[in-house]
Amino acid sequence: MTSRGRFLTLEGVEGAGKTTALAGLRRFLTGQGRRVVTTREPGGTPLAEDIRAVLLRPRPEPVDAFAETLLVFAARAQHVATVIEPALRRGDWVLCDRFTDSTFAYQAGGRGVDAAAVSWLAERAHGDCWPDLTLYLDLPARTGLARVKGRAGDEQGDRFERERLDFFERVRAAYRQRAAQHSRIVSIDASQDAAAVLRAVEAAVERLGG
Amino acid sequence: MTSRGRFLTLEGVEGAGKTTALAGLRRFLTGQGRRVVTTREPGGTPLAEDIRAVLLRPRPEPVDAFAETLLVFAARAQHVATVIEPALRRGDWVLCDRFTDSTFAYQAGGRGVDAAAVSWLAERAHGDCWPDLTLYLDLPARTGLARVKGRAGDEQGDRFERERLDFFERVRAAYRQRAAQHSRIVSIDASQDAAAVLRAVEAAVERLGG
Repeated sequence: MTSRGRFLTLEGVEGAGKTTALAGLRRFLTGQGRRVVTTREPGGTPLAEDIRAVLLRPRPEPVDAFAETLLVFAARAQHVATVIEPALRRGDWVLCDRFTDSTFAYQAGGRGVDAAAVSWLAERAHGDCWPDLTLYLDLPARTGLARVKGRAGDEQGDRFERERLDFFERVRAAYRQRAAQHSRIVSIDASQDAAAVLRAVEAAVERLGG
Repeated sequence: MTSRGRFLTLEGVEGAGKTTALAGLRRFLTGQGRRVVTTREPGGTPLAEDIRAVLLRPRPEPVDAFAETLLVFAARAQHVATVIEPALRRGDWVLCDRFTDSTFAYQAGGRGVDAAAVSWLAERAHGDCWPDLTLYLDLPARTGLARVKGRAGDEQGDRFERERLDFFERVRAAYRQRAAQHSRIVSIDASQDAAAVLRAVEAAVERLGG
């Protein structure tokens, strides 16, 4: 009988270094001989990637915050049902860039959607499939935004990256509140250099064991 | 002070004649000098039409039924907030091809999604914004499917039209159950010719008054 894999997520504001940390963590785990599925939200399946494109595209139309929340969970329900759960059941480790903590941070914290509604949707969309460990890369919103704006060829940014500083400050506050409430969330200082962030990520994963 | 407009919806399985009835009803109402907004679900805004395209596209990936339900309500929340409610507030009449009764019929009845979850989502996505009158064009599933398959250039159909007869029989049963429970839903025999269906639609709207 195959034992269930581990579900690891990375969280943080734009520019916190999730992509780099995820790549480093993947190398670390495959170096230990683990089978690893790397994926992202919103996205991770063809349908969910279509939803991602709908979500991120800048548009003149003001987007209703609850509609945005439902889109995120539609992608998530599909991702969990067709990718994440099957991988965990066959014993693979799943590394996912963003998950439901992002929805509490961006849609509840950032947009003001009722957190109880987000909880209801999470329960319906993925039941008990919560991460075993969440690596939250904590960074002042201003620092993250400055990093994003410095990226070559990314002058405009997607619909979220175009938000203003106060939005990302609410997002960060919601992340920090969630990190304080859930022991599975490990907060890592993302103002350190990438090598130090990765060492902290690896140390948290070592403590998880499995 | 402008009095609130009326919200009218058309419902029914594929091939029931909603499009023809909607066009006729629009002519009937504009002939009375009313300002009429004709729209459809899923869709009715650029974002919601993008969601419609994601929903209807046939794809090899099996689509999670709850993800599908969330997509439908994401489009609906956006449509109500940016099109339907503003139109009703300025006194226009809104004619909409499908609304939440479709979700009870297709996602709850057809796919087996919990009807209580659909109710929760409806309450969150559009609150009290329910139709004043719903014209349900009732037709045996087999008859509707035969009509759809007879349409020129529509040999394959969208992701819903490709469903099998037993799916549409569950959809119809759910529609009929809802029509029996909600007095705003008027059931019209859609096996009649289009002119007779339109007369029945117009008579129901006349009884509504306003």
